[in-house]
Amino acid sequence: MKRLSTIGIYRLALYNRCLSSLDRCDHEYVSSQELANVTGGIATQVRKDLTCYGKLGEPGKGYEIGKLKRMLINIFGKDKVRNVILVGVGNLGMALIAYKGFELQQFKIVAAFDNDMRKIGRHFDGVSINDIRDLKATIASLNAEIAIVSVSTSSAQEVINELVSAGIKSILNFAPARVSVPKEVELHNVDLSIELDKLYYLLKNSR
Amino acid sequence: MKRLSTIGIYRLALYNRCLSSLDRCDHEYVSSQELANVTGGIATQVRKDLTCYGKLGEPGKGYEIGKLKRMLINIFGKDKVRNVILVGVGNLGMALIAYKGFELQQFKIVAAFDNDMRKIGRHFDGVSINDIRDLKATIASLNAEIAIVSVSTSSAQEVINELVSAGIKSILNFAPARVSVPKEVELHNVDLSIELDKLYYLLKNSR
Repeated sequence: MKRLSTIGIYRLALYNRCLSSLDRCDHEYVSSQELANVTGGIATQVRKDLTCYGKLGEPGKGYEIGKLKRMLINIFGKDKVRNVILVGVGNLGMALIAYKGFELQQFKIVAAFDNDMRKIGRHFDGVSINDIRDLKATIASLNAEIAIVSVSTSSAQEVINELVSAGIKSILNFAPARVSVPKEVELHNVDLSIELDKLYYLLKNSR
Repeated sequence: MKRLSTIGIYRLALYNRCLSSLDRCDHEYVSSQELANVTGGIATQVRKDLTCYGKLGEPGKGYEIGKLKRMLINIFGKDKVRNVILVGVGNLGMALIAYKGFELQQFKIVAAFDNDMRKIGRHFDGVSINDIRDLKATIASLNAEIAIVSVSTSSAQEVINELVSAGIKSILNFAPARVSVPKEVELHNVDLSIELDKLYYLLKNSR
């Protein structure tokens, strides 16, 4: 299976969300043009993205919604809940624990970690806050493959090193820091300011 | 000037960040291939994205970094600080006020709003927390064009309506709610779970 670029994955994830919000039955059809409209792309790109996964569309009809849904559920593993841990229970960490959007997409934060003794042993929104020093032992018992890093910029690399040595293979980093990981680990840096950039562009080039 | 798709803007914003992190002088060159590597795209796409803005590249050399930087600074208005207001000073709101990544990209949160009397009149990280009922009057004095909405899902639409009636033209919404705005207003919904989707895809299709 061809590995998609980050932007390609992003488009697939958007198609997935588009299907969930369509007020249409699974046996009905959606056109590549409709899917293109969601991502601000072109129909040709949609067809190209989906072609990697076999013959899905029917000429003149589009994609059968149920079939496409099942394929996307499979690609993104949304047939089961994925366990996630979080390191850094500051304001951002708490916001992410409470964020309802993760659950809607089958991600569950199963444990949080911090080095602040006033937080360790407590719970926030149903999630236990553990000692960062117990990271390795706790992760082993949690079946978590993904970690969210919401620590300060200055601690990000250190925390990421610890996660890697505890066996985490996939890290979502919210700290606006330049960090590095071994090549077998997936690191994705979230840059929230890029969202404001997009918006600012749209404001300055408005309809 | 052609208006780009959301994904096109995203790519331009990434090129912009790539240039800032290049350890190279402004009179040196960067190739479309190098820029493509940052966005996980192809060199042809980079050249197409940048062609909209005139003849920038030189065959066999690439793009002069200084020239490209100036163009991107101009597109994203990064030659000056852009004032932003924020509504909803919960955990996410506080995290966003404290987020260092916005300042790095020339966005400044100049005021926050909430309806909680215990918060109103206070400051958080140097930002004043104002009464949501004073939204209209305060916005008028702030020269803010962009608003960040970090309220709960159930309040999102109401707050967005108030922002629109206060004259805000550009809204970044973090609430995982389906909200609508009049067509002259730019609304951008941030879905943090899409970041986890991308990461999960990479994990399952790892190198």
